[in-house]
Amino acid sequence: MNPTAAILLIGDEILSGRTQDTNGNHLAKRLTEAGIDLKEIRVVPDDHATIVAALNALRHRYTHVFTSGGIGPTHDDITADAVAAAFGARISVREDARAILATHYANPDDLNPMRLRMARIPNGAALIDNPVSKAPGFSLDNVHVMAGVPAVFTAMVESLLPSLTGGAPLRSVSVRVEKPEGHVAAALADLAKAFPDVSIGSYPFVHEGIFGTNLVARSSDKNRLKQVETQFLTFR
Amino acid sequence: MNPTAAILLIGDEILSGRTQDTNGNHLAKRLTEAGIDLKEIRVVPDDHATIVAALNALRHRYTHVFTSGGIGPTHDDITADAVAAAFGARISVREDARAILATHYANPDDLNPMRLRMARIPNGAALIDNPVSKAPGFSLDNVHVMAGVPAVFTAMVESLLPSLTGGAPLRSVSVRVEKPEGHVAAALADLAKAFPDVSIGSYPFVHEGIFGTNLVARSSDKNRLKQVETQFLTFR
Repeated sequence: MNPTAAILLIGDEILSGRTQDTNGNHLAKRLTEAGIDLKEIRVVPDDHATIVAALNALRHRYTHVFTSGGIGPTHDDITADAVAAAFGARISVREDARAILATHYANPDDLNPMRLRMARIPNGAALIDNPVSKAPGFSLDNVHVMAGVPAVFTAMVESLLPSLTGGAPLRSVSVRVEKPEGHVAAALADLAKAFPDVSIGSYPFVHEGIFGTNLVARSSDKNRLKQVETQFLTFR
Repeated sequence: MNPTAAILLIGDEILSGRTQDTNGNHLAKRLTEAGIDLKEIRVVPDDHATIVAALNALRHRYTHVFTSGGIGPTHDDITADAVAAAFGARISVREDARAILATHYANPDDLNPMRLRMARIPNGAALIDNPVSKAPGFSLDNVHVMAGVPAVFTAMVESLLPSLTGGAPLRSVSVRVEKPEGHVAAALADLAKAFPDVSIGSYPFVHEGIFGTNLVARSSDKNRLKQVETQFLTFR
C-alpha cells in the first residue's frame, strides 16, 4: 500500500476566484511520480478556526498533509499559528529560522517585526528549505507547511520530497480515440472488469467539431498497463 | 448575510495531476459576482462512499453545494447515484431526461444503454439545461450536479445561476505596489484594523527582478472600498 496524502490550500483569493490555483496540480503530479496517493484537495479561507478544523480532519486520515499559503509577513498570514493550535504546540520566533531569514536582508533593519513573523515556527517542527526567498516552511509531524507563491511553493516541494518515503510510482498510458464517449463506454466497462487492478478512465473532448475521448489507464505495474494500452488501441 | 456555498470537484484525473481544474475558478468568480460566498472547495476521487460522505458533510453546512464531474456515460460516472444515496432518494432513468437526451441523436440506436445512464436522475430533482450536449445536470434540494467538461460545466452554470437567490455582490479593488510585502505589512495591518468590515489581503509577486505586492480589498460596500483604495495608493 502506498502512503496517502491530502493538500490543504489556504487563501481567500482562491475562493473569490481572483487566483487560479496551480500549486495543487503541480504537487499532484509530483506526488504521483513519487508513489504517494493523493486522496483529497481542500481549499479553505484565511480563518483560524476553519484551518485548525481542516488540519485535524485531514492529518489523522492521511499519511501526509501538505499546506500552501498563509506563511508570509502580513496580518492575514495565520497558517503557522493554526498548525501550532491544531497540534497544541507552542510557537514563537525560533532562532534557527530568524538566522536564515536574516541572510536575505543586507540591512538588519529590514528584518522588521512583521517580517520576523515569518520566523515563527512551532516547537518540534523541522524547517523546509526555501532557496528562493529564504523564509522557511516547516514540517510538524505529518503536516508540511509551504508558501503560496508558486515559485516558492515549487522550490519547497523539491526541498521536501526526497525526505518522504514513497511507494511504487503510478504510471499512466493515454490513447486518443476520435469517437464520442458513449460509443466506447460499454467496451470500456468490460475492460475495467477484466483489469480490476488497473484504474481505467475516459475523458471526453470536443476539438474542431470532433467529439472524441481520451482513454487513460493508471497502474504501478508496467506490464498490466501495456496490456490495457493494446486493448485501448482496438477502440480506434 | 449572503448565502454560502461549497464546490465539490469529483475526479481521479484532478488528483493524479493529469488535469488542471479550471471549473472551480470559473464558478468561484461567478459566485462572487452573484453575491454567494464560496467557503470551501474539495476535490475527491471517483469513489462512491467518499462522494457520499463529502456531500453529507457539505450540504448541511452551506446554502448550496455545486458538483462537477462524473455524470457521463461510462462506468466511472457515479455522481448521480452517489447524490441519490446521500439523500436516500430513488434513482432511475427518467422520461423527461431521456426525451431531452434523445434529441441529441439522429439515429435512435445511438441512445445505447451506456448513454441512457445519463438520463438516470434522482426522484424529486429539477433538471439543469445543457445547451452544449443535451445530457442534463440536476438540482436535488441544495445540491447542484453538473458536468466536468469545462464547456458543458460553464454552460450549465449559466443555466442554473439565475434561479438562485444571491446577496450583495462582493466587489474588489486592487492596487499594485512595487515594494516587497514585508515593507507594507505593518501599515496594512493597521489599515485592516481601521476597516474591520473590509477584507484586506496582500499578494506578493516577483516580476522582472522586482519584488512587489498586489494589495486587494473586498467588500460589497462601494464607498468603503473607495476609502481603502485611497489608502492603498499612499503605499506606493
